[in-house]
Amino acid sequence: MTEMKATNVTWHSSHVEREARERLLKQKGCTLWLTGLPSSGKSTTAFTLEHKLIHRGFASYVLDGDNIRHGLNKNLGFSADDREENIRRIGEVARLFADAGLITLTSFISPYRKDRDQARKIHDDSGLKFIEIFVDTPIDLCEQRDPKGLYQKARRGELKGFTGVDDPYEQPLHPELVLKSQTATPAELADLIYNYLIDHDFLPASAR
Amino acid sequence: MTEMKATNVTWHSSHVEREARERLLKQKGCTLWLTGLPSSGKSTTAFTLEHKLIHRGFASYVLDGDNIRHGLNKNLGFSADDREENIRRIGEVARLFADAGLITLTSFISPYRKDRDQARKIHDDSGLKFIEIFVDTPIDLCEQRDPKGLYQKARRGELKGFTGVDDPYEQPLHPELVLKSQTATPAELADLIYNYLIDHDFLPASAR
Repeated sequence: MTEMKATNVTWHSSHVEREARERLLKQKGCTLWLTGLPSSGKSTTAFTLEHKLIHRGFASYVLDGDNIRHGLNKNLGFSADDREENIRRIGEVARLFADAGLITLTSFISPYRKDRDQARKIHDDSGLKFIEIFVDTPIDLCEQRDPKGLYQKARRGELKGFTGVDDPYEQPLHPELVLKSQTATPAELADLIYNYLIDHDFLPASAR
Repeated sequence: MTEMKATNVTWHSSHVEREARERLLKQKGCTLWLTGLPSSGKSTTAFTLEHKLIHRGFASYVLDGDNIRHGLNKNLGFSADDREENIRRIGEVARLFADAGLITLTSFISPYRKDRDQARKIHDDSGLKFIEIFVDTPIDLCEQRDPKGLYQKARRGELKGFTGVDDPYEQPLHPELVLKSQTATPAELADLIYNYLIDHDFLPASAR
């Protein structure tokens, strides 16, 4: 415990302007919202892009089940209301990260159009870009991958409300990007997003 | 809407390591948790520090009523449970920001010791530093400032459960820093925190 004094004079009563953050980080904050069926490749794509961005000197962060479900959203279950609130909170946190200037990735099934549209709206309302990325992997390929055996459990009726089996996945109508993971590796998909970020001025041309 | 392919090969299945972020940002992520009475000077101190950090080239972000209460926590009221949940969510979001490598500031009254201790615990559990900063302004000075006339309203009984008037403020027992705002400007207080960050290796010595 320390008590101290100091000697300078200027002070501020409001947040740093977005432009000052952009100059510092040499990038524009935004949210890359990955959506798709379970095992479609969202997280691997997101992590691969995060690694590439950090390696190239850009600030980025992935929000995913690991760091959200056991923390911020640990008091939510899987009822309809809780699923909606889950995505609502993720949208709000992504907005904060984008506002802080980070290339923010979210990796959640987020099966319902209205929840994704709501996440887009709160970004729009803050003057921040929401980039919806549909990881468009055919369900039979997702089921073949199924690293945790969840499709199998759902097919046996041991898991209820599993997206793609007994709960709907509503495809995006106007996503900014569609990724076809059956014909490309996660690294190739990450590159597509990376190039999108350059093409749309979130990253400088020198990042190419 | 675009469909694309690409050509490289490496990929990753997990988050970027904390050390890689630290190298990129030339700083260590942490949470600076400002706590104190209404009008004690928390937000002005936080914003002043955020400006200084960004100006010096460090990534920082302030979580405060503006960007939390109208967004992530807009579905919370002021009941005891909602107040606890308010601080819980802020603690979780701060942890995510610190994990992303940012010098994260929170500016909330956060009057209850157990809520602050819980926020500290989730940082500890993630191997992240939680730096509790008590903005120790005497209540009579806070009441003199009272820019929004809230103390006046509370004294007239028009606001119920107002911290310092009819709801307790529990002082931190072992804060990392105590700021005395009656004898220093917000800029001086911000400098004290800035120097703390250097002294404790969150910022490089070259930042001095």
